[in-house]
Amino acid sequence: MSFPVPTMPAPPVGVVGLGQLGGSLAAALVAAGRTVTGWDVDPAAREAAAARGVRIDRELSGVVVLAVPLPAMAGALDGLTVAEDATITDLGSVKLPVLAALRAAFGGRYVGGHPMCGTERSGHAAVDPGLFSGARWALCLEPDTELPRWLRVAEVALAAGAEVVPVTAAEHDDAVAAISHLPHLLAAALAAAAAEAGPLALALAAGSFRDGTRVIASDPAFVTAMVEGNAGPTAAALDRLQAQLARPWPDLVAAGHAVRAGQPAGRRTVRVPLDRPALLALGRTGGAVNRRLAAFVEGWVPDVG
Amino acid sequence: MSFPVPTMPAPPVGVVGLGQLGGSLAAALVAAGRTVTGWDVDPAAREAAAARGVRIDRELSGVVVLAVPLPAMAGALDGLTVAEDATITDLGSVKLPVLAALRAAFGGRYVGGHPMCGTERSGHAAVDPGLFSGARWALCLEPDTELPRWLRVAEVALAAGAEVVPVTAAEHDDAVAAISHLPHLLAAALAAAAAEAGPLALALAAGSFRDGTRVIASDPAFVTAMVEGNAGPTAAALDRLQAQLARPWPDLVAAGHAVRAGQPAGRRTVRVPLDRPALLALGRTGGAVNRRLAAFVEGWVPDVG
Repeated sequence: MSFPVPTMPAPPVGVVGLGQLGGSLAAALVAAGRTVTGWDVDPAAREAAAARGVRIDRELSGVVVLAVPLPAMAGALDGLTVAEDATITDLGSVKLPVLAALRAAFGGRYVGGHPMCGTERSGHAAVDPGLFSGARWALCLEPDTELPRWLRVAEVALAAGAEVVPVTAAEHDDAVAAISHLPHLLAAALAAAAAEAGPLALALAAGSFRDGTRVIASDPAFVTAMVEGNAGPTAAALDRLQAQLARPWPDLVAAGHAVRAGQPAGRRTVRVPLDRPALLALGRTGGAVNRRLAAFVEGWVPDVG
Repeated sequence: MSFPVPTMPAPPVGVVGLGQLGGSLAAALVAAGRTVTGWDVDPAAREAAAARGVRIDRELSGVVVLAVPLPAMAGALDGLTVAEDATITDLGSVKLPVLAALRAAFGGRYVGGHPMCGTERSGHAAVDPGLFSGARWALCLEPDTELPRWLRVAEVALAAGAEVVPVTAAEHDDAVAAISHLPHLLAAALAAAAAEAGPLALALAAGSFRDGTRVIASDPAFVTAMVEGNAGPTAAALDRLQAQLARPWPDLVAAGHAVRAGQPAGRRTVRVPLDRPALLALGRTGGAVNRRLAAFVEGWVPDVG
């Protein structure tokens, strides 16, 4: 088989925003022996990253990761210098709006990404180099995405310990509406409704309430930007949920239990050609690119085993 | 202050049903130096309990705890011999139906209870002597409940490591609809709706989905009996949730976050007379009886410090 990407050393990585996600990614890559440059508007975040071995600089090249909140995405590179051939990616939780904001500036050099991790905590104090270990990382392959750049970003995600799920931005936004944005709204509604029920209810709250409301401990501005940035798919996911809630309770309980009991599915290894249709088909069936598959590109990614 | 209960040694405890809840309670009490007799229709559960120091016998006295699933509650004592002056309590997750089922047979000797713990696992393999440690344990004080018997059951809950929340059965059922039964239905709906969204959505599912669906991993028969046994309050809680979901999302997110961020409230110690109105008022304001308050009754509960 021929390699569709040129043989090249692992590119440097630049991380803009050194909070929980960006700081954790930078720390994970430094721990993996990579050269990482980083920047954050907050001096304390810069200092914390520097202490973990991140080079602090406003000049970025290679794979440049925008790890800033959604409302700050369009202006994330203001005041920074980015190499002309850099590949731009981001960690935002909604992909179509970021694609719309960045496509004009970067065209096929932009590869949207979203690692499915993070906790209700935020900021550089919540940095954890193991945050991405075993996590799924959605990576967008639009019709105009340059595949070698997609592979470069995929390699960064793999180096951080994640598995890469090839998706389109639209597929991603529909999927995360169901499994992330809707759960955030439900957690909020559950907490607010329980408070209405009174102090006795909150005093009796235990495991099922704690679990069902944990994500709404996240920064409300972050959650609001996320659900409003993905309003259409989230509203559609809410409609699907309402239809489920209208079922007879024994049917609903049985259906929900079957889904939860069916997870996680057994894993099998498949070899997938490195082209867009095959990669997207892998993602649609619930598959992910892991380190074994990445061996296909080891000619240009010498540090991935 | 005068003690409303006679000075007496800690009574023996009999546990009917030695699965996760009953087996854990028996094990916790044995570990606390108490004499515990137990029974289960399953020989394997009896053997597991015996190995933890529980005396296996069909004759029960003192505080007799019915730790069987809701559908089995009415017949839990079939084939067993219970002392005529025994105090009967249970661990069922709904209280009005159990009260209706047991009041005729036991009158004021029945004290409904519900420890707010347990996991999605079940059966004697899930026994954990620390299960009740720090948990809230709702204990029903109806107008005809004999207060000395209520205190006896409260002492058992405290000895297992829990804190006791005085409630009426109706108050309990309303409260748990909001913080337990509704979360079970939501978890089921969330899981079923995500499955409808397809394999990609399930493959991307991470923390918020796992947390939001964990409780529906529980035995569906158990969940169905619980929500159908508390249908009125659960439907009312669902209505309150729907009203929350109809709010503008930024308002909903802010309201939910405020509730979650406000938990747990700071604790302060109050002294409460051991009478029904004062105890119920304590429960309604989110308070609980803990070991310090139990010192009031140490004359008859020599092992509570």
